[in-house]
Amino acid sequence: MSIFEKIESEVRGYCRNWDTVFKTAKGAKLVDENGRTYLDFFAGAGALNYGHNHSLLQQRLVEHLTSDGVIHSLDMYTTAKRAFLETFEEIILKPRDLNYKVMFPGPTGTNAVEAALKLARKVTGRQNIVSFTNGYHGMTLGSLAITGNASKRAGAGLPLSHTTSMPFDGYLGEDIDTLKVLERYMRDTSSGVDKPAAFVLETVQGEGGINVASKEWLQGLAKLAKAHDVLLIVDDIQVGCGRTGKFFSFEEAGIKPDIVTLSKSISGFGLPFALTLFRPELDVWTPGEHNGTFRGFNLAFVTAAEALKLYWRDENLTDEVKRKATLTARRLTEIADLFPGLEAQVRGRGLVWAIEFNDPELAGRLAKACFAKGLLVETAGSSDQALKLLPPLTISEAELNAGLDIIAQAVAETVVTVEPATVNA
Amino acid sequence: MSIFEKIESEVRGYCRNWDTVFKTAKGAKLVDENGRTYLDFFAGAGALNYGHNHSLLQQRLVEHLTSDGVIHSLDMYTTAKRAFLETFEEIILKPRDLNYKVMFPGPTGTNAVEAALKLARKVTGRQNIVSFTNGYHGMTLGSLAITGNASKRAGAGLPLSHTTSMPFDGYLGEDIDTLKVLERYMRDTSSGVDKPAAFVLETVQGEGGINVASKEWLQGLAKLAKAHDVLLIVDDIQVGCGRTGKFFSFEEAGIKPDIVTLSKSISGFGLPFALTLFRPELDVWTPGEHNGTFRGFNLAFVTAAEALKLYWRDENLTDEVKRKATLTARRLTEIADLFPGLEAQVRGRGLVWAIEFNDPELAGRLAKACFAKGLLVETAGSSDQALKLLPPLTISEAELNAGLDIIAQAVAETVVTVEPATVNA
Amino acid sequence: MSIFEKIESEVRGYCRNWDTVFKTAKGAKLVDENGRTYLDFFAGAGALNYGHNHSLLQQRLVEHLTSDGVIHSLDMYTTAKRAFLETFEEIILKPRDLNYKVMFPGPTGTNAVEAALKLARKVTGRQNIVSFTNGYHGMTLGSLAITGNASKRAGAGLPLSHTTSMPFDGYLGEDIDTLKVLERYMRDTSSGVDKPAAFVLETVQGEGGINVASKEWLQGLAKLAKAHDVLLIVDDIQVGCGRTGKFFSFEEAGIKPDIVTLSKSISGFGLPFALTLFRPELDVWTPGEHNGTFRGFNLAFVTAAEALKLYWRDENLTDEVKRKATLTARRLTEIADLFPGLEAQVRGRGLVWAIEFNDPELAGRLAKACFAKGLLVETAGSSDQALKLLPPLTISEAELNAGLDIIAQAVAETVVTVEPATVNA
Amino acid sequence: MSIFEKIESEVRGYCRNWDTVFKTAKGAKLVDENGRTYLDFFAGAGALNYGHNHSLLQQRLVEHLTSDGVIHSLDMYTTAKRAFLETFEEIILKPRDLNYKVMFPGPTGTNAVEAALKLARKVTGRQNIVSFTNGYHGMTLGSLAITGNASKRAGAGLPLSHTTSMPFDGYLGEDIDTLKVLERYMRDTSSGVDKPAAFVLETVQGEGGINVASKEWLQGLAKLAKAHDVLLIVDDIQVGCGRTGKFFSFEEAGIKPDIVTLSKSISGFGLPFALTLFRPELDVWTPGEHNGTFRGFNLAFVTAAEALKLYWRDENLTDEVKRKATLTARRLTEIADLFPGLEAQVRGRGLVWAIEFNDPELAGRLAKACFAKGLLVETAGSSDQALKLLPPLTISEAELNAGLDIIAQAVAETVVTVEPATVNA
Repeated sequence: MSIFEKIESEVRGYCRNWDTVFKTAKGAKLVDENGRTYLDFFAGAGALNYGHNHSLLQQRLVEHLTSDGVIHSLDMYTTAKRAFLETFEEIILKPRDLNYKVMFPGPTGTNAVEAALKLARKVTGRQNIVSFTNGYHGMTLGSLAITGNASKRAGAGLPLSHTTSMPFDGYLGEDIDTLKVLERYMRDTSSGVDKPAAFVLETVQGEGGINVASKEWLQGLAKLAKAHDVLLIVDDIQVGCGRTGKFFSFEEAGIKPDIVTLSKSISGFGLPFALTLFRPELDVWTPGEHNGTFRGFNLAFVTAAEALKLYWRDENLTDEVKRKATLTARRLTEIADLFPGLEAQVRGRGLVWAIEFNDPELAGRLAKACFAKGLLVETAGSSDQALKLLPPLTISEAELNAGLDIIAQAVAETVVTVEPATVNA
Repeated sequence: MSIFEKIESEVRGYCRNWDTVFKTAKGAKLVDENGRTYLDFFAGAGALNYGHNHSLLQQRLVEHLTSDGVIHSLDMYTTAKRAFLETFEEIILKPRDLNYKVMFPGPTGTNAVEAALKLARKVTGRQNIVSFTNGYHGMTLGSLAITGNASKRAGAGLPLSHTTSMPFDGYLGEDIDTLKVLERYMRDTSSGVDKPAAFVLETVQGEGGINVASKEWLQGLAKLAKAHDVLLIVDDIQVGCGRTGKFFSFEEAGIKPDIVTLSKSISGFGLPFALTLFRPELDVWTPGEHNGTFRGFNLAFVTAAEALKLYWRDENLTDEVKRKATLTARRLTEIADLFPGLEAQVRGRGLVWAIEFNDPELAGRLAKACFAKGLLVETAGSSDQALKLLPPLTISEAELNAGLDIIAQAVAETVVTVEPATVNA
Repeated sequence: MSIFEKIESEVRGYCRNWDTVFKTAKGAKLVDENGRTYLDFFAGAGALNYGHNHSLLQQRLVEHLTSDGVIHSLDMYTTAKRAFLETFEEIILKPRDLNYKVMFPGPTGTNAVEAALKLARKVTGRQNIVSFTNGYHGMTLGSLAITGNASKRAGAGLPLSHTTSMPFDGYLGEDIDTLKVLERYMRDTSSGVDKPAAFVLETVQGEGGINVASKEWLQGLAKLAKAHDVLLIVDDIQVGCGRTGKFFSFEEAGIKPDIVTLSKSISGFGLPFALTLFRPELDVWTPGEHNGTFRGFNLAFVTAAEALKLYWRDENLTDEVKRKATLTARRLTEIADLFPGLEAQVRGRGLVWAIEFNDPELAGRLAKACFAKGLLVETAGSSDQALKLLPPLTISEAELNAGLDIIAQAVAETVVTVEPATVNA
Repeated sequence: MSIFEKIESEVRGYCRNWDTVFKTAKGAKLVDENGRTYLDFFAGAGALNYGHNHSLLQQRLVEHLTSDGVIHSLDMYTTAKRAFLETFEEIILKPRDLNYKVMFPGPTGTNAVEAALKLARKVTGRQNIVSFTNGYHGMTLGSLAITGNASKRAGAGLPLSHTTSMPFDGYLGEDIDTLKVLERYMRDTSSGVDKPAAFVLETVQGEGGINVASKEWLQGLAKLAKAHDVLLIVDDIQVGCGRTGKFFSFEEAGIKPDIVTLSKSISGFGLPFALTLFRPELDVWTPGEHNGTFRGFNLAFVTAAEALKLYWRDENLTDEVKRKATLTARRLTEIADLFPGLEAQVRGRGLVWAIEFNDPELAGRLAKACFAKGLLVETAGSSDQALKLLPPLTISEAELNAGLDIIAQAVAETVVTVEPATVNA
């Protein structure tokens, strides 16, 4: 029995499907201790948009370390923090005409979400938060209450409350505009849904199976929020930082949320780091009202600033993501077309894609087969019914194609293996 | 206006008292961008027990980085994680006969606490948690509900529930054994307090003003928990990792909590990292039931393992802390004795100490005066009425004395300055 | 200033619109202290289905009183209680093949609802309750949490939780089958709506503006409840006891709820009385687990038993209600047709009807005008936009026509008065 | 099997101990259908302070009924309601210099308590309510959350929240002044107890086992409430209406609560009726914000007004209660003294008394033995360890002595029977 099986809690998950011990990583590849190389279509669940161990960021970290740069500083001022704030303002906020205040809520996504919810409730004096079906926002009690997944919710050991789950774009089928449902509840003072402090959503739901909100839906939601004096929170933790092409996932829709959360890829290097951004008028915090030991993690300031300079001074990465998106969509659609019996659906935006099958257990088998062939790719959706592609944005086209080849092969082999059995049944 | 004042949220706190921009740090010292050096009696709020930028840990990080070691791995297996688990088992768990499972709940203290609460509720099927007056456990909704501070609680924008705040050791004065109060509530089925899943406490309350639970009280609490089939959770985030002398703060009392949380200094280097430990029988999690993007932060695995090897293979650090504790207690008592009019109380254990005054605003003035003299020291307590000393455990005796000299001077000067004014008023 | 204005709380409501002091009442008429007679289209908000002061019930009460019959007995056994239970079983339960246990939860509707919710949660071990938009179930915290009206909810001074408000039949317009929305949430394990203990509804929403659920919708709901192992609670407090024709409002749909609440007209005489009925398998209460001082109000047992014998041994009353329903519907439709500019909608079933106008303030003005003409009729709906007709079931056709005449006149006069003003505006 | 056992819910309680069917009642006596007479030391759990079927009240009811007086009127004005309000003001409020507004919250105690809590939260904008150990306030969710009994709380099927249970007078033993505990929590802003809207208590806890708060404690509590701007709510449902001698139980302590709840004996005849009284400044309700079908139960207005006139125009009843209190205390103490082995404690005030034994099961056996001898007397306390005496205030001294004789005999016989067994064990 390995030390993992012996003393690590049963809560561990990914290691059960990818049962090897990884040692090194670079770009879009991980290498295990036996020297086997894996293509990475998982990218730290979106935390490694620029790949593993980017050499320039690596170098900046070593420089900071060897010069005795401050590592841990809570919310004291440091030179590294200043450099980050200046870079973030110059490269991200100003060009997008986003006049946000920046809060360091603690270094994880759920810290950023909890801070957003606390602020929204404090500012409005209202307690209810409207979230959306199949949303995923984190595991601490506040974030969990706006997360849809029943088994994760059950982990709370408590009824989760002060939230209302409204239907996401497309949730009620093609014929029903789910915004109309939300609007009806908001307009009616006897709807039984308490007026919310905020709407909170991911523009593309990652854990929920890659559900993509349309531009029109996002615009309608922003309008509805404004009309009812409700704050709009976009949780861009998984699909921000370029995942959908532009830096923020909501840019294409032309909306400006009141509050935005960022984490995962914001450090650019896989370091724990998170931000909560909001309109200056909402900055009603008293000093220290929300705090946390690791708010000032200077290594992350260093790599985050450097990554912004590398990738977001121009449109190159955005254009690259668009090209790869087209390629990915095309190839997944080809797979779907090749096996019409699977009734596969292909969904995605930028470099976050899903292919979902009529047999809900197929995705799990495919992920396993891909791993055997040297590709890390996970499943998503309420019953893990979709294969979810989340490669680094910086993956080469050759690598992207190689990974898609593996998926295509896995489908072909798995379906061939399965079909006769299905026929006999 | 600095970039900090311009775009960082008003929630920032420490920077307001320590209004300079820090650049480098080593051991017990921080240096600002103007080259001024500060002695650090704050130690990252307890996250830097071994000081800033420990050279050997620095070296290990550089090695890991330059060899393209995996940085971010969620709960996949990595060689760095294995090394940490083996080291933790060998150096910490086995010698103390602690048969704990290790959970990586996310890299911050509040993640560790939320996981502990979720598990306790899940295991017992009960919802109530008994916490203690003046306790501090974190800022996300679950942890905040067991935190005493009213202004922090108000930040939730929600009534915080499913918790009961019982009196900590000493809370009701010397004459009342607060355990008897708790016991009365537990025994009586009409007490109005729902049978709890767990008691959760810090053995020395840090934010709450350095309230030290006695050995006897801790033993009584453990006994009471057992008698009523209630889980005992020790939150050792601030006062574990040697802060009170031994690795865990509860060792001296000879108790074995059912669940323990660690964070802050567990990485040894100020990196975001946290653990939730529990008896194997409690490990009822289903895979992935609690997750988080930064559960597998390999840089922290590297430094944490190295720090354990450096400091916890023998009793040297524990002995050193005891010596410094004696010195600190003696010198603070001397200050108290020198100014009987301040009715100062000196409290502490290991290297966490407080000196509290009859004038609740004095501590704030002293902290300011200390900063002016080159010492970082913060205040604590429900009205920030105590000066709180939390130097690195590895501080030299000379540095410790130098810092205490500054405090003594600050008291002398502040009191002299203040007294006449007081007389005139 | 009257004693009412001087010492009765500002919470008083109906007296503000019907500003006179009533002294006697009989059948469908109330008489004030000045001897003025009013036709009653309000019937104690549905508590007086058999009219005021029914002579035979009056007589039974006097007999009980003058024979020193037990008045107050909590849940002790009395001869009057036995007579009621026997009558209820024989006349109501057996002929309908309803095998219900009878609980006396306290004498008001909200007591009955709270008992139903407690039982549903206890039996299932689940906490969430699905209620419906525009539902009204009572003013105590449990019932209020399933009531839609925002201003009533705000009265709690607390966030109301552990409930989900789903769209009632017709809530999302004609094109959307709201059952599909509910079904989608129930089927999806990532919907964010915790699996409920029960669905709770009124088949005709009274306070909500007379929203009538169709037979098909009710049948679909019952099926959905069964399929998902969710209890079905029908709150028949306002529209039970013959209000829709049959004794229970759900009989026409052919469904058998798991739990039913009755109050208002169940005593037959306007006395405080309520019942919670449920399938025997659900009777998991421990003795005294829910109690209340006025559970055993023997005067109500006496009149309730007598009223059942009077009206529910045959189909006469049901047939009578149907005839009057037809008449009411016809006449209201005539009014609507006469004034097409008002875009009036007529809704109802049995003897509960509403006429709603495009001008949301018109209903209030009409109610006032009717009162001036000697008719009590109230408004309903989330913005009191509908005139609500709730005459005693036993009202004579002449009286019913007389009341409808008054409404017709009021509409004619009010509209004539208003129209020019509208034109000028 | 009786109809009761066949179709009444298992929740029924008292009938299990008093297994007969009662038919008539007068004064302090109940008669079952077999003609057997029982002395009543239970008095409808305090709802029958003036005994059963008081002849004059009976007569007034018959007059009202036979004159077609309005029975049910919600919050419309009626002549009967006016008469009640005038009488209540003249006989109760004015002489006591109590400037209260009167609210009709619905006809049961729990309605009155829920209205009180809602108002307190609304007025203060705070959510927490401080209640006391062993308190009992009702079965609907709001009232249940301030009730101590664990098995009743469990009936909710939900965690009960937004309340804090503080130790009642004497709860922590003779040496601890429980007010000091409460004060410590109130003063400390890090106590973890959110500032409450109100303190709510019974001055003598009935269900909790007859715990009597001292005059000094009540005065201290009122002072503490004022000092911290917290509302004081006295729940006088069981021990108001003369139960402790004066009309309100708090009069002797000379305090004036901000809010008072009354029910049980306020109708004087066992009819469902309840009041919530409060200082005019607190009357911030909007019309109809709290409502209920049976707020205007005119039969109760009639008897309530008459009962006030009969008993509260002078001090006669108060004096009578005092005499009977002395007699009861003396005789219970004699019983206690006669059997020192039982270590009996005698507690009470006015005509609410308990005798509690070292053997917690003895009270149950005694109640059973008393019933066999023709006396109704119940048990109380968290484990039903006390015999609770609650005779009508108007009981004759002969009847009171006869009942006490039965108790004395029951003790003698039960103890004799039990003792040898105990010896053998």
